[in-house]
Amino acid sequence: MPAPRVPVELREFPEPDLPAGGALLRTALSEVCGTDVHLWHGRLSGVPYPIIPGHVTTGTLDKARGTLTDVQGNALAEGDRLAFFDVHRTCGKCLACTAHRTPTRCPSRRVYGITDSAADGLFGGWAQKVYLEPGVVVAKLPDRVTFEDYIGGGCGLLTSVHIIERAKIVLGDTVVVQGAGAVGMSAAALAKKSGAGLVIVIGGPQTRLDLALDMGADHAIDLDTTTAEERLARVMDLTSGLGAGVVIEAAGSPRAFEEGLLMARNGGAYVIAGHYTNTGNSTVNAHEHINRKHLDIRGCWGSEAGHFLRALQVLDRYRDEIPWHRVGARTYGLTEINEALKVAESLAIPKALVDPWR
Amino acid sequence: MPAPRVPVELREFPEPDLPAGGALLRTALSEVCGTDVHLWHGRLSGVPYPIIPGHVTTGTLDKARGTLTDVQGNALAEGDRLAFFDVHRTCGKCLACTAHRTPTRCPSRRVYGITDSAADGLFGGWAQKVYLEPGVVVAKLPDRVTFEDYIGGGCGLLTSVHIIERAKIVLGDTVVVQGAGAVGMSAAALAKKSGAGLVIVIGGPQTRLDLALDMGADHAIDLDTTTAEERLARVMDLTSGLGAGVVIEAAGSPRAFEEGLLMARNGGAYVIAGHYTNTGNSTVNAHEHINRKHLDIRGCWGSEAGHFLRALQVLDRYRDEIPWHRVGARTYGLTEINEALKVAESLAIPKALVDPWR
Amino acid sequence: MPAPRVPVELREFPEPDLPAGGALLRTALSEVCGTDVHLWHGRLSGVPYPIIPGHVTTGTLDKARGTLTDVQGNALAEGDRLAFFDVHRTCGKCLACTAHRTPTRCPSRRVYGITDSAADGLFGGWAQKVYLEPGVVVAKLPDRVTFEDYIGGGCGLLTSVHIIERAKIVLGDTVVVQGAGAVGMSAAALAKKSGAGLVIVIGGPQTRLDLALDMGADHAIDLDTTTAEERLARVMDLTSGLGAGVVIEAAGSPRAFEEGLLMARNGGAYVIAGHYTNTGNSTVNAHEHINRKHLDIRGCWGSEAGHFLRALQVLDRYRDEIPWHRVGARTYGLTEINEALKVAESLAIPKALVDPWR
Amino acid sequence: MPAPRVPVELREFPEPDLPAGGALLRTALSEVCGTDVHLWHGRLSGVPYPIIPGHVTTGTLDKARGTLTDVQGNALAEGDRLAFFDVHRTCGKCLACTAHRTPTRCPSRRVYGITDSAADGLFGGWAQKVYLEPGVVVAKLPDRVTFEDYIGGGCGLLTSVHIIERAKIVLGDTVVVQGAGAVGMSAAALAKKSGAGLVIVIGGPQTRLDLALDMGADHAIDLDTTTAEERLARVMDLTSGLGAGVVIEAAGSPRAFEEGLLMARNGGAYVIAGHYTNTGNSTVNAHEHINRKHLDIRGCWGSEAGHFLRALQVLDRYRDEIPWHRVGARTYGLTEINEALKVAESLAIPKALVDPWR
Repeated sequence: MPAPRVPVELREFPEPDLPAGGALLRTALSEVCGTDVHLWHGRLSGVPYPIIPGHVTTGTLDKARGTLTDVQGNALAEGDRLAFFDVHRTCGKCLACTAHRTPTRCPSRRVYGITDSAADGLFGGWAQKVYLEPGVVVAKLPDRVTFEDYIGGGCGLLTSVHIIERAKIVLGDTVVVQGAGAVGMSAAALAKKSGAGLVIVIGGPQTRLDLALDMGADHAIDLDTTTAEERLARVMDLTSGLGAGVVIEAAGSPRAFEEGLLMARNGGAYVIAGHYTNTGNSTVNAHEHINRKHLDIRGCWGSEAGHFLRALQVLDRYRDEIPWHRVGARTYGLTEINEALKVAESLAIPKALVDPWR
Repeated sequence: MPAPRVPVELREFPEPDLPAGGALLRTALSEVCGTDVHLWHGRLSGVPYPIIPGHVTTGTLDKARGTLTDVQGNALAEGDRLAFFDVHRTCGKCLACTAHRTPTRCPSRRVYGITDSAADGLFGGWAQKVYLEPGVVVAKLPDRVTFEDYIGGGCGLLTSVHIIERAKIVLGDTVVVQGAGAVGMSAAALAKKSGAGLVIVIGGPQTRLDLALDMGADHAIDLDTTTAEERLARVMDLTSGLGAGVVIEAAGSPRAFEEGLLMARNGGAYVIAGHYTNTGNSTVNAHEHINRKHLDIRGCWGSEAGHFLRALQVLDRYRDEIPWHRVGARTYGLTEINEALKVAESLAIPKALVDPWR
Repeated sequence: MPAPRVPVELREFPEPDLPAGGALLRTALSEVCGTDVHLWHGRLSGVPYPIIPGHVTTGTLDKARGTLTDVQGNALAEGDRLAFFDVHRTCGKCLACTAHRTPTRCPSRRVYGITDSAADGLFGGWAQKVYLEPGVVVAKLPDRVTFEDYIGGGCGLLTSVHIIERAKIVLGDTVVVQGAGAVGMSAAALAKKSGAGLVIVIGGPQTRLDLALDMGADHAIDLDTTTAEERLARVMDLTSGLGAGVVIEAAGSPRAFEEGLLMARNGGAYVIAGHYTNTGNSTVNAHEHINRKHLDIRGCWGSEAGHFLRALQVLDRYRDEIPWHRVGARTYGLTEINEALKVAESLAIPKALVDPWR
Repeated sequence: MPAPRVPVELREFPEPDLPAGGALLRTALSEVCGTDVHLWHGRLSGVPYPIIPGHVTTGTLDKARGTLTDVQGNALAEGDRLAFFDVHRTCGKCLACTAHRTPTRCPSRRVYGITDSAADGLFGGWAQKVYLEPGVVVAKLPDRVTFEDYIGGGCGLLTSVHIIERAKIVLGDTVVVQGAGAVGMSAAALAKKSGAGLVIVIGGPQTRLDLALDMGADHAIDLDTTTAEERLARVMDLTSGLGAGVVIEAAGSPRAFEEGLLMARNGGAYVIAGHYTNTGNSTVNAHEHINRKHLDIRGCWGSEAGHFLRALQVLDRYRDEIPWHRVGARTYGLTEINEALKVAESLAIPKALVDPWR
């Protein structure tokens, strides 16, 4: 991706010399996520174009200089099926990393496929091989978890593990998820698995809602065929007029934020997790929506290595029940990559995958 | 108070027949708080005018039918100096009271001086005697705590004990308090006593700020002589550019809410506790202010019996260090009550007190 | 139950005069739980024998004086299928009820079937009709939930809802449940529904373990055929040598407590919920088991009205997946009640039910 | 310290070649803490004797290879007064560091003065110069904080910041601190500064108790002149018979653990932070002490970089009110080091300091 708003180009890079502890991953699958569309639109600041996109990626260990190990110190072998945590650096020392316990806000944070220039190395999954920098958190895929499972979950699953941690769902809580993209679907699936009494997904189009229902949602409300008033009425109807104990915003729209404030019940929680770029302002009434409601609103940014490791456990446990492999709806080769971006931009399918060897 | 926007009248009521477990308090001091001004402005819905205002009140036990006891079962004697929790009914059974753990949102909640008609009895502290309904939470004032201490704290102190519980201050956190009224001053004082590294109060006029500094604030920013930009710059300057770990909104202004969102640091918390009436909308950017900041926003409504009991402990512990008695700046007799309301409306003094026997 | 260690007798009581707000329940099913065996053994102090046992009970509304309502204020009609919360009084005012947020430790707490003498009224579910005191928390059974479902869950389900709240399971945590009685089985089932990555139940006999597996446990370890070392080795084996993120003690044995301390991982949590009577001391090494492990140990006593209300939601949601009706293995009529107690004492079946009309 | 139980020897080491990012600290003061006595007694396993003891140390920057920066990226200059976090390595990747959020349980954790052999470099503060490995968390001492303040707080202060985080003190809670050593005194001081309603320290000898009172404790109970029954009675007397909301164990004795369980109130919390070595077993009754009490017991191991950074804020804020400089009672030169160890072993003074240049 040479720059925003221009076509992605194919470039060839020499295979890098590996430092001690470094490794190369042979890419099996990467994804086109919403962030990649934002990158293409130039909506993120400070991106050192040209970049190699693809922040969540899976494949096999191609080669390592020295012994590559997983987080428990087990040696990994060439050919092992691997996943790695896409945040490849946080400082571990700053106030955000330590006293504030919010490493996703570390000023030194670097993310594959986003913060590194193509000149710096193979830091993106749309390349056939990805450079695993020393210190990157690497894990073997559990035996039962396919590449398609993992990448179908992708960054949306990691984000969702974080969202669910922030949501603190108590047995029986009704959960509303705003958004039926990769984040919303995983959040709905995990909310159900975390004890939600009822999971309601709001989004569209209908094909995504059907998938959301298959992922575990109990009800789906079509954004395209309802008014805000109807959606609110539906949620109130499903919650005996109380509103939802937990609302999860995974839509990225200022209007969604305004709606969600109305849908949460007194003493409920509202996790804001879809606003990864600035899409405009919302109008909020601090009295009606927050103070009198005794509401908790919790922003949720990025994910941590722990969420990545838990995501693998989640995939291992639930892959038979939750069809993550269907989220990654279609796979594109490198020559089709601009088409993949356009499909992702159009939201026509839940997620486009990238197989750079195809 | 016969109705909104008309002068308060003096009326005489017969001394009530007490049911078993009921009691009468001889009022020593009550207060004119912001809510009383809102009541007078007709800004609260569902108020059964005429009412006897005065929700937080202290005095001596006049008489009881049967033995009145405190919460630990100790008998109270006539003449004992008492305080009581102004929320005299919550159901204890509804979802808000039980599963949701938010009794201040109980639909059956009733509050002295606000929710009961004068026709229902002496449910307000601007009366010379107040009816203590069976079941009301009653406590002896600790020996060292004067009527002036207690009523200087008043409802603002109870609210602040709840705010501090919600704020979860960690040792060393910088705390910004927006508002230098009775709530803001107590919140600032208790923030300092809860381990805040630095307490900054924003408000006015200067006399209130001086009192806030005497109550424990480290810095005071005058709302009247600064711009929003200057206030933000000051907070950033005092926090090494990070923003405050905790911001407490006790101002009740939509602009304050907007400012506070900018003042909180990444991963910080923002307690919204000043919006007891609807004063209009705020403009919020979910990306900039919440999602990317990984911010917690926590509405805080009313107070619970536990906050009342802790407030008494707080007064007992800190009354020598925190000059609550100075918050109640001037005391008015019943014939001066309309003057007291006007003074409270004008914010000229931190709090007007009422001595209905004067 | 006239006194400890003597046979339970059948007595007839006149139908009580109902006060305003009081009601009578026509018992459908009650249970013989572990507490009833403790009562029979005289292991609880302060019990005002003779008592009518049966603390968790379900049936139909026989008659009410005035309109009986559920917690949301909906009127209940004669013939409605009801459940009620067996804790019929807590004061709502003491430090335990308020400031300490632990109403199950209220000194005034009274529980059906345990704390009320038969002379005080029909306060136990082994009677054909149960007196619903004004103020008791009453709820309609959800349409899909049968009497057998509800009573199969019974007090063990309520306790388990509380346990799960205390356990704060995070997605992927391994959970070990010690004990395969009514509490242990429900705790295992709900742990799985709350996102546990793996649920291991330790107990016996094999029939109970089989039921525990059907309720949702992934692994069962037979207490009767293994040594403590073998059990620990098995748990370590299933957790990559780390130990369990959450251990739940629902066994009531000092040896179980000692074992559980070894099974919890560093930074894990251990909920102690099975020691409802004093069964002796445990030997604990504060260095090895707590301090160095950075372990959380959380006692869990009784349940609150909110847990009762959530239990009904849980039954409604999961009754098709979790066979609670099988926990109540056999139903006894009043003339068989001493036999039922002996069966319960022998632990031969998970739970004996009581149908006082049979 | 060549080996356990033999005298500490003076050895000379060449000044090390610094790698990029490495630095040398010119020691001003180090300490002899309880852990050093344990090291000398050989009570810690896996220690690679010979070692250079002294894990918490302060001094001036001697020289750096490249620019040494603090955690916010500010450059440090030669001669700057510095402190550094004694845990110089945790992996940041393992389950303990990430998913479990307990980095003090990281298997790769290394600590100055304890885990590194003298053959590996100058990793201990009893040396005149200390090697600051690249990646060590370094901070300037706040201007007002003297070397004596910092080292008087020392590792006990860091541990106490962690303890207070675990204790979650709510305004008005009574706090009992068991132990009047460096940890206990700092914990008592910080408990008071965190809103404790009453702080009671149990320990001895009287000189330490006097200092604890000066540090902020409200009451001190002398371990040497009281029986366990008297101590419990005293705590109950000071808490209206309820027991303490929070008990902090900083004594390291199995008997203290048993006593503390009795002193905590229903629904209270007990932080176990003094058992850094195995001093034997305690006898615990799970029914009486944990289950029925609905008690939280929280092990607390080590401290994190965030606690170190907060400790500096705490020193800056409170150094005028809390006389940490008096905890470091006497300073020893290198030739007196064996005497210092003996004094520390005897508990005759709160803490012995080491000035290796004296």
